[in-house]
Order: sequence, then structure tokens, then C-alpha cells
Amino acid sequence: MADNSFGRLFRMTSWGESHGPAIGCVVDGVPPRVALTQSDIQVWLDRRRPGQSRFTTQRKEPDMVKILSGVYQGLTTGTPISLMIENVDQRSKDYGEIEQTYRPGHADFTYDVKYGIRDPRGGGRSSARETASRVAAGGVARRVLAEIDGNILIRGALIQIGDQKIDRAKWDWAAVEDNPFWCPDADMVAVWEDLLDATRKAGSSLGAVVEIVASGVPAGLGAPVYGKLDADLASAMMGINAVKGVEIGAGFGAAALNGEENADEMRMSGDEVSFLSNQAGGVLGGISTGQDIVLRFAVKPTSSILTPRQTVTRAGEDAEVSTKGRHDPCVGIRAVPVGEAMMAITLVDHLLRHRGQVGAPGRFPPPA
Amino acid sequence: MADNSFGRLFRMTSWGESHGPAIGCVVDGVPPRVALTQSDIQVWLDRRRPGQSRFTTQRKEPDMVKILSGVYQGLTTGTPISLMIENVDQRSKDYGEIEQTYRPGHADFTYDVKYGIRDPRGGGRSSARETASRVAAGGVARRVLAEIDGNILIRGALIQIGDQKIDRAKWDWAAVEDNPFWCPDADMVAVWEDLLDATRKAGSSLGAVVEIVASGVPAGLGAPVYGKLDADLASAMMGINAVKGVEIGAGFGAAALNGEENADEMRMSGDEVSFLSNQAGGVLGGISTGQDIVLRFAVKPTSSILTPRQTVTRAGEDAEVSTKGRHDPCVGIRAVPVGEAMMAITLVDHLLRHRGQVGAPGRFPPPA
Amino acid sequence: MADNSFGRLFRMTSWGESHGPAIGCVVDGVPPRVALTQSDIQVWLDRRRPGQSRFTTQRKEPDMVKILSGVYQGLTTGTPISLMIENVDQRSKDYGEIEQTYRPGHADFTYDVKYGIRDPRGGGRSSARETASRVAAGGVARRVLAEIDGNILIRGALIQIGDQKIDRAKWDWAAVEDNPFWCPDADMVAVWEDLLDATRKAGSSLGAVVEIVASGVPAGLGAPVYGKLDADLASAMMGINAVKGVEIGAGFGAAALNGEENADEMRMSGDEVSFLSNQAGGVLGGISTGQDIVLRFAVKPTSSILTPRQTVTRAGEDAEVSTKGRHDPCVGIRAVPVGEAMMAITLVDHLLRHRGQVGAPGRFPPPA
Amino acid sequence: MADNSFGRLFRMTSWGESHGPAIGCVVDGVPPRVALTQSDIQVWLDRRRPGQSRFTTQRKEPDMVKILSGVYQGLTTGTPISLMIENVDQRSKDYGEIEQTYRPGHADFTYDVKYGIRDPRGGGRSSARETASRVAAGGVARRVLAEIDGNILIRGALIQIGDQKIDRAKWDWAAVEDNPFWCPDADMVAVWEDLLDATRKAGSSLGAVVEIVASGVPAGLGAPVYGKLDADLASAMMGINAVKGVEIGAGFGAAALNGEENADEMRMSGDEVSFLSNQAGGVLGGISTGQDIVLRFAVKPTSSILTPRQTVTRAGEDAEVSTKGRHDPCVGIRAVPVGEAMMAITLVDHLLRHRGQVGAPGRFPPPA
Repeated sequence: MADNSFGRLFRMTSWGESHGPAIGCVVDGVPPRVALTQSDIQVWLDRRRPGQSRFTTQRKEPDMVKILSGVYQGLTTGTPISLMIENVDQRSKDYGEIEQTYRPGHADFTYDVKYGIRDPRGGGRSSARETASRVAAGGVARRVLAEIDGNILIRGALIQIGDQKIDRAKWDWAAVEDNPFWCPDADMVAVWEDLLDATRKAGSSLGAVVEIVASGVPAGLGAPVYGKLDADLASAMMGINAVKGVEIGAGFGAAALNGEENADEMRMSGDEVSFLSNQAGGVLGGISTGQDIVLRFAVKPTSSILTPRQTVTRAGEDAEVSTKGRHDPCVGIRAVPVGEAMMAITLVDHLLRHRGQVGAPGRFPPPA
Repeated sequence: MADNSFGRLFRMTSWGESHGPAIGCVVDGVPPRVALTQSDIQVWLDRRRPGQSRFTTQRKEPDMVKILSGVYQGLTTGTPISLMIENVDQRSKDYGEIEQTYRPGHADFTYDVKYGIRDPRGGGRSSARETASRVAAGGVARRVLAEIDGNILIRGALIQIGDQKIDRAKWDWAAVEDNPFWCPDADMVAVWEDLLDATRKAGSSLGAVVEIVASGVPAGLGAPVYGKLDADLASAMMGINAVKGVEIGAGFGAAALNGEENADEMRMSGDEVSFLSNQAGGVLGGISTGQDIVLRFAVKPTSSILTPRQTVTRAGEDAEVSTKGRHDPCVGIRAVPVGEAMMAITLVDHLLRHRGQVGAPGRFPPPA
Repeated sequence: MADNSFGRLFRMTSWGESHGPAIGCVVDGVPPRVALTQSDIQVWLDRRRPGQSRFTTQRKEPDMVKILSGVYQGLTTGTPISLMIENVDQRSKDYGEIEQTYRPGHADFTYDVKYGIRDPRGGGRSSARETASRVAAGGVARRVLAEIDGNILIRGALIQIGDQKIDRAKWDWAAVEDNPFWCPDADMVAVWEDLLDATRKAGSSLGAVVEIVASGVPAGLGAPVYGKLDADLASAMMGINAVKGVEIGAGFGAAALNGEENADEMRMSGDEVSFLSNQAGGVLGGISTGQDIVLRFAVKPTSSILTPRQTVTRAGEDAEVSTKGRHDPCVGIRAVPVGEAMMAITLVDHLLRHRGQVGAPGRFPPPA
Repeated sequence: MADNSFGRLFRMTSWGESHGPAIGCVVDGVPPRVALTQSDIQVWLDRRRPGQSRFTTQRKEPDMVKILSGVYQGLTTGTPISLMIENVDQRSKDYGEIEQTYRPGHADFTYDVKYGIRDPRGGGRSSARETASRVAAGGVARRVLAEIDGNILIRGALIQIGDQKIDRAKWDWAAVEDNPFWCPDADMVAVWEDLLDATRKAGSSLGAVVEIVASGVPAGLGAPVYGKLDADLASAMMGINAVKGVEIGAGFGAAALNGEENADEMRMSGDEVSFLSNQAGGVLGGISTGQDIVLRFAVKPTSSILTPRQTVTRAGEDAEVSTKGRHDPCVGIRAVPVGEAMMAITLVDHLLRHRGQVGAPGRFPPPA
């Protein structure tokens, strides 16, 4: 089952388990002659790397990426780019006992039922460690975006932890880089710190909501019906570990709108079309409008908690389990750079797909 | 761009515009020797057909499906099944004036920007009429499900119109078939009737939330990382016209949970594993748990409204537009059978994918 | 199993059985604003149509194609183009007895073993009638080629029937249109007429070799390793009914060459590279060189013959079978337009794939 | 462009250049619980490894494979298997001068035209070194075949070098392992030794023909129309470096047969169907018959020859080039294990595809 690839023309194929020798991915379909170095990728991995604050797992992974192919003298060659990240801090002993006992909320049970076998060390293939491959591929995607359309800017932020939501009126992109939560509301930072400290102390965890915004995306990306940009973004985000919901623009709030509120009005602004609102979140009929693409996704609480939970064993007996070890009290935090990466990968894929079918970029006005 | 297909092993390819001679789809990968007649498909199309109450468009489309291939003497042969639905009530004159003026909230603008051309009659390819093809393919999928695993039951309901949400405590599946909204809360029916009558009178429209539940799904469907069952379901639902958000299990509510609340505990119940809750919505790590698969999606209000809206023309001039004609005041209603169909298609695809890679169905306990 | 589609970006999905109500295909990924009428497609179907000489089956099929979607006011819209050809002359009674008895050389046995069921009427899905869908999709492909790169010319010819090979020194493309065999060697026509008359009289059949040449193909189409243009062409041609071999350029003759003979030397000719020979058949390393793409494929003799053959029945008993009815004594003849169509489809697909990844067409000299 | 993957359900994605740090592949869709060790793969790489006789390149590559993921405690887990082979003997200095001058018969020119850039060291991505990844993936495929259907046996042989063809009457599979050519005709070995010694002395090279035979393949693999087993095999083999033709069964010889000769007759043999001949090469209508699958492919002479050839430079000037260094005088020899590997990969893919759609293996007699 070719289930470890994402994207059609710009396609990443991911491999690796949490405690194997390495993880990595192959990025195929990269346009040629794009400047690319390891540090172009490393910079994004560094954002995602664990252990940078007390609010993420203390596992020490340098997450140093190596480019094994597809780049010659600093330029992509159009052939597949193989990226590898060696696993360094593997402490397998932490995980020995969970081989027989399924942790609620984890994929332990379902992997075993499906495959009859799993690598239990650190969650194996289902570990959030796999998202490092996404971020690495996202780094390649960002370079390609910059080369093809230098105006695209992809940014993410955390907008809710537990029941504490930011005040959107205070949104400040600059603030995002100034706190360990990627929080755009500076006033919320202290609240979240207290909340997470208490949560960690209680051996518990909390869910979160992430928002990803892509600005400068040209109109015309996406395709009708089963190639919709928003459908691909939904798949991209829902596929991130622990994500339980995805919405775009007004999202679930759209249910409570009426038609007048929902329909983003348009006006000419010089030669260009400008929209008076963005309930659509930048996508109409599956195709980008040229407005900001705005989406959100919900991340469930980390399933690894200290509190003992009822469960069953691999042998079919009732048991209890509590998860010791080094875990994120809120995995939503580290999901921010992952969501950005998936946005970048999806947009590049659609840029290439559009170019393949249509040739020229979308434009307004259309031919008479 | 092969953008009009959905599914990998069980794959439907859809074609057709609202006011062309016909619409239809080709369903490939259907297992052989499955009993299938036109009425097995027609029964689901009849549920979706417009004009069955005053709350859906008054367009009169009999939506009679024809099977053109792939069935011999009442059994599928394993070759592609071509389904065609002729367009009967096309009244193109209703749509003449919108060729030049983009309707806010519709795909008019984005199609034109992308392709430089579009069939404007009735929304052309972006019309919700395309969903008849989904429902038809869903009918085939249901027959295959019944043949492979007779226990799977797929049902949908409308749980919110505008800001009026049902009372989940009153959920009654039997009620769903007794009102024009697929509403599971009998007490809500009158409220929605009044709400939609007022909305229609005002020339406006309302959004809605649909819930789809698949019971009896065996554990083990789905795959890690980029072949996750929930990621495919998210893509399936987000790709339905007018959908702006998708969630599974606790969904966006998961953000506000703590780890103890989120982790569905397990107990042995005889030889089987039983879960004490279903925050996961039936999917862990992208693989089905055997619990009900529960998802919801938000549908925006119908963009075709009588109230004039500011817009621009194809030639780049400011204009106003109001949409006359026969429209659903709440497209969410007719989205229920469409969501059911996409669930059926996605589940069959994953059943075949699982069978391809693993052979036997998932089972518990796994081999020692 | 999505086994009825061909191509990645320009993708045709074929459906239909020989004696069902119709056959057809959906062509997805067509670039927008390409002028296309039914007669642009019909002209190629007319070339393939049976019954035009005494050397092809006397089945009378008008093979009139209908465009059901994807074209608006004479231009493609970028949405899928559904093409349908109704089956008219179905005489099912001819085929009643073969339901139980497998015809040697046909797919009767293998379909039954695989699927446990088949539509036996006229060969069902395995009938060469399916190639009408290929030719129809090829007509769309030719229009796209003309729009994107007007210099590409695709032509086919029959170069061998039985053991009678043409004299390549006498090759004359004009002659191809002047005889019922698409024979480029005018002197061979009478020989083949006598040969086939005798073959038909004997109730037998003969194999053939077809050559397809694409001129004016730009350099740079194809991709390394698993996206090779010649690998895709090999798949395209081997997938045509009754084809048993495919070769490109020197083909099997390359085995007997030495390195000096094989390596096509190059010289500058003004600003352009010119090759002094074309052993490569226009493809090096899987990528087009700009020379003519030259390939050949071998077609086995029609398996439907009058001479009784030993076989077995569906119930597992020894039997004899002879095939009456209206058959081509040499199916290779009608394979010529099919091979042209598959060449056109494959080239368009690679043109779009190249444009997707690289953007601009291939060019020489490359950047310094 | 996802052009570096092969297979649908069993899918390998290949990466790496001849003189980069490593090459490798990711094998996705592997069934779980298949016993697999590095030596299961290494044994096949050892067969392909250069430098084992004076008739293959003297480059010293140990070609040691590492399994980086997807295997736990000696069993596959169903997750992607990442295989890596480090490049050891890279002598880049040998290749410095060819960066500017295109070698006739090589992909130098076409890569540069397509991508505007290429890694010239050792042929970069177009080097036959990539075939080590195919052989490694083939090793995984063979293990899966053994697990699912232990009767399948895949063997290859060289049947022609230059114009010297073996005598098929002398075919002896045991002989194949006893000479450096994989030659099944012991009497031909000395002839080929002399022929290749002379060729090497002359600084020239020769083409060859390889035959691959798969025995014990169950009937029912493959699919009609665009999923034909033989079409996929044609693509698999034509995609191997330097291959110019592929044929199955009677192949090009089928053109000269009549219908009686071509149609393999059938008789019951106990409960099983037995064929009286195998002109079909084990495939009818794209689906395996249960007979041996027999195919051949032609390999052109090594393009790297000492004799100076006319060519052009990257800057567009006439030049001469001769290729020094360590090259195979007949690359066809080392293509034998590569062809075997591609056969194994294709068969596993079709086994899983069949299982996905149909469930049970093909069987005779079919249901009444």
C-alpha cells in the first residue's frame, strides 16, 4: 500500500521509526535549478526540535538533516532528494514494558490489530517523530515556492490550549517568535505557562488549536471536485499525528452564518479584484482566490500521561497503564511548524499541478 | 490533472456539468460477483433528489441512473461500471446573465481565473449536481460493503441549521427518516421548519452541520502516516461542495480536553476489546478501532441568495448580483446522503487496500 | 483496482464491453481553451472503423462519438471530457455458445479464473472494441498537442504481415493512405492482398508488425528511471490487445550492434544539435532527444479462427472450439490507428508532466 | 513529478546518484510479518555486483545494503522499508572532463536539455548504478513472494551477445550459475569469452538479449486493458538502463505465426487445465494463465567506448569524445539480475492488487 507518500507532482515518501537507526524522506518531483542547502532545511527542523523549552519533550534530538541525493553544486537537479535524520537519543529501555500493554489514545492497539506486529519502541512508526520528515520536506517546498513565486508567506500560530483561546484582536505575528508557544497574543503567554505547568505537574496533558495562514498565494490553485485545494489541505492536516479536526475560513462557524454574511463581496481595486471579507478562507470551489488561505486544526491532548488508565494487554487481559518518560504536555505546540510544512508541500504540489495542466498562472481578467 | 477521481483501489471518476446532456461516473476496481442492479443505486439517488420538500431546490430532476457497463446478468464482473444520469430539467435561460457577473461565494471567479473559461450554466462543473455521481458511486460501494462485511451500517443526520443545534440526548435514528431534514431530534423539526421558512422568505440561506456515523466497521482499516483513514475521510468530506470544516470524534472539542478525558479506556469483554468512551471517533493512529466512526462536517449557507451583493464582472468592472432561480435555502440538508456516500466509498477503498497489503482482516489478539 | 486508466496528468479512464449499450472514456486533465469538436475525434475513429475493406471484420459499427462534458462553446474547459460511443451492431446470438467454451488465445479462460465471471458477448471487456475509446481519447490528445506544440506529427504504418516484410527503402508515407493496410511500400500491397485472401479462405489469421513514428517531438520529454518516456510507451503499446512485443529505435537489433554503431553521433547544425543516426529511436536515458521517436510493436494473429482447436469448458471438460462470426484475419491492420492514439496520449501526458516539474520547455544550450 | 517510483501497492521509490554519498530506495506496501534480514537482500546484490569477472566493470563497490526501517525483530512491520547502499569507490576524477562534452548514446545531452543541470559524475542519476536499488527491492519482493506463494520461481539468463545466440535446445538452468554470463548453453560460454575479449581489446562493446522466466505464477494476476500484467512487465523492463525492446512469449515472432500456431490449445489434466504450448508467454488478455511467464529484452551495447566519437559540447561546439575508465564491455550481463528483480517486484505488486480487488486467488473451475 503506497501509504507513506504525500503529494502528486511534488511528492514526499516518508520512512522510519522513532527508535530505528534513522528517519527520513524522499522528495520527488522537485523542479531543477532551485538553490538548496542543508541549512535551508535545518532552519525549519530547528524550530520543531524538542527540548527547547520546558513545555516540550526533553528528548534530546539534534535532528541534523543530511541531503543524500538530488542536489549538485548547491542546485537541485530535478532528481529525487533523499533526506536522512539519524536518531540519536533513543533510550529504548523507557519503552520496554509497553510492548505488551496498549496505551489508550495511542495507535498501539490498532497497529497490532491491523498488522499483527509493531515496533513498540517510542511509538515506532506512529511516533510524532515522523513529523520531522514532514518539516524537512517542507523546507524543500519552501525553497521551491520562493523560486517560483517569491510572494508566498506561510506562517503558523497556536491559538488555543485547553479551553484558553487567544484574543484575536491582539494578534501580532511578531509575538509568535517571542514565546515557546508560537502564541500571537502576548497577553496569553503567561496564562498558558501557568496552565501547562499545572498540567505537567498533574501528569496530565492538554489539547490545542493551531492556525496556519498562507499569504500571497496566487489565485487559481486547486481543481474542481476531487482535486480541491481545501480537500488536499484537509487531508494534509488531518494526517498529522493527534489532529482531530480541520476547518478553513469560517469553518464550523459557517454553519451559523446566513448567505449574506458568508458570501465574500468583491470590488475592483485598480486592475485587481479585492474581497471585502474572507469567510471562504481563500478557497472557493476548491480553487484559491488570491486571498490569504486561513485554516485551523485541533490537536488532541498528548495520550502519554502519568495518570494510570484502564486498558488491555496484547494477550487479551485487563490491565492498567501509565506512561512515564519524556513527553510533551501539549503536542499542539510542536504541531505548528508541522502544519506550516504541510501547507508548503500542498501549495507547491498544486503550483506544479496547475502549471502542468494550464501552463500559465491564473490571471484576471480572463480572455474575453 | 487527474483531479476528478477519488479512491485508490475502489476508484470513482466523475464527469459532467449541471446543464450538459448528462453527468455520471466510472467506478473502477469493484470486486467481481457482487449483486448489483440499477435500483440498488437508484434508492440512494432518490434520497438526495431535489424537490422532495419545500426546503430544497424545486428543480425537477428525476435523476434516473443507467448502468452502462461492468455488470452482467445482475453481477459485477470486476470491470469498470459506468453510471450515467441524464440532465432533464436544464432551463438554461435562468443562468444567462451570470456568465458575465461573478456570484460571491461561488466558484465563478476562481474557475475563470484558473482556466480562462467556464461553463456558467447552472454552475457547470462546480454545481452541487455533481454530488449525484457521488451518491451513485456510493450505492455501488454500499453493495460491495454488504458483500464483504455485512455488518457495516452507514447513517447520516443533520445536527445543526444556522445556530440551532439538536439536543443529542434526544437522538433517535428512526426520527431521521420522518422529516425533510434528516433530523434525529424530533423536537427540533418544527424549529427548523420555521427558521428555514423565514430564511427562504427573506431570500437568504443558512449553513448546517452534518454528522455521519459508520457502525460495525472492523478494526484495522487505514494506514499510518499518509494513508490514514481519517485523513482520507477528511479529504472526502471537505471535497463536498460548500463544506468548510471536518472533525472526527471529539473533533475541535478535543482541544479543550485533558489527557485523561481524551484517552478512551479499554476493557476485555469476553474475547473482545471494548472501549469505555469514543473521543477518538473510531480511529487511532489513522486506523479504525472497531468502534463507531463518527464525523461531522460544516456546510456553508447556499451562496445563491436573492439579496443583491457587491461583485465584479468578468470584464473587470464593479457590479451587483442577486441570484434568482430555484435554490436550496440550506444545502446542508441534501449534503447528508452525499456524506453517507463518501463514507461508503472511503470505507470500501480502505477495505480493499487492507486486503491487498495484509490479506486477512485485522484481528485481536495478534499473534504472540 | 484503478486498472482502467492510462496516463498521469492527461489521464483517460475507459469503460464498456463489446455488446453492452455503449463504450466510452473519460479524459481528465485536458488543458483549457483547446478548440475541440466531435468531428476532431470522429475523423480518427473513422480510420479505425471496421468493415472498410474485406480485410477487417464485417461488423457494422458507425462508431459515432458523443462529447458529454468538458467542452463549452467549442473550447475545452479544463474539466473532464466524457466520450461515449453507442454499440449498434451487437448480434449477441453469434456468441451464445462460447460462454461455456474457452477460445484458445483469447482472454476467456483468464478472466474466468480471475473474476469467476465474465461477459462473454463479443469478448466483453477484452474485445478489441475497447480500442475505439483509445482512438477517441487520442483524438483529444492530438488537439492538445496541436495547441501546445504544433510541430508534432504522429503517423503509423504496417510493416509486416505474416513473414512478408516491407522493403524499407521503398517507404513512402503518402502510400500509407492509399491502401487498406496502411502499408508504406506500394509494391507490398498486392502481396499482402493475396496473402490475406488465402488466409481468410483457410479460416486462419496472421500476425503483423506496426511502426509508429512521432516527428517534431521536442527534446526533454520523459524522466529518469521510472518515468522514462520509452517505458511509458512500452506500457502503452504492450497494453493494446494482442500485442506481444515492443521495441524502440534499433530495438532487438541493438543486441547485435557494437558500441560504435549504436552511439548516435552529434554535430552542431547552426544553433541546433543534429544527430547523424537514430539507433536510439529518439529517446536517451528515458528522455526525448528531439529526433523522431520510432517504435514498433508485434501483433499476434487473430485468435478467432475457423479451424477447430482443442480446449476445455468452463465446467472442466475437454472440448473443441472453432470461432465463426465476423473477424479480422489480421488485427494488426486496425492496430495502426490505435498505436498512433497511444503515442499521442503518452506524448501529451509527458508534455504536461514536463511543464509541471520544469515549467519551460527543454532547451539547448543549457544555462552555463 | 513522482517519476522515481515503481509499482502501485508494492511500491519502490528510488533515489541517489552514482557518485553521491549513497543510493537507496524506500519499499512501501510490504505485507507485515514477512521474515526479512539484510542477507536476504544482500545475496541478490552480490549477484549483480561489478568486478566479479573480467567481463564487467572493475569498479569496486561492496554494495552492502542497510535496512533502516520497517523491520522489527526480523519481521516486516507493514511500514516502509528504507534500504541504503553507500557509495564507496567513487573516483570522481575519472569523470571531470565529461561534464562539458556529451557522450553519444548516454543521457548526458537529454538530462541537460530537460533540466538545465545534471550531476555528471559517473552518469549521476542515469548511471546503471541505480539498478542496485532495483535488485535490493527485488530481494524484498522475493521474500514476500515466498511468503504468499512459495511456488513462484524467478530465473534469468543471457541468451545472446552481439550476433551470437545460444542454442535453445541446449538450455540448462544449472549451467547459468557456472559461468560469468548467466549463459544457459554451456557450449556458448567459450564463444562469448572470445567475443568479449576481442571487443574489450578493441575498446568497443556489444549488445545482448536477456530472458526472464517466472514459473509457478498462479493464474489470474493482471487486469484488463490498462492494468495488464504484460504491459506492466514491458514498462518494468523497458525502464532498465539501455533496454531497447521487450517481448513476451512468441514476441516479435508472433507476427509470422498463423492463428492455429499462435493459439495455445488446452486440455484437462486431472482437475487442472494444461496448455499444449506457450506462445502466449503465460499471459492472455493481460492476465496470467498459470503457465511460465517468459519474456525477453534487448540491451544495447555499452555507450562508454574508447573509440573517439563525434559529439557536441554543453556550450554548443563540435567536439570528439572517448570514454576511458572502468566500463562493462556488455552491460547486458549485469542486466540479468536486474530483470529478475523487476519481474519479482511486478509480480508481488500484482499479487497484492489481485488480492485487494478479488480477495481469493484465481481458481478453476469458476463458480457455475
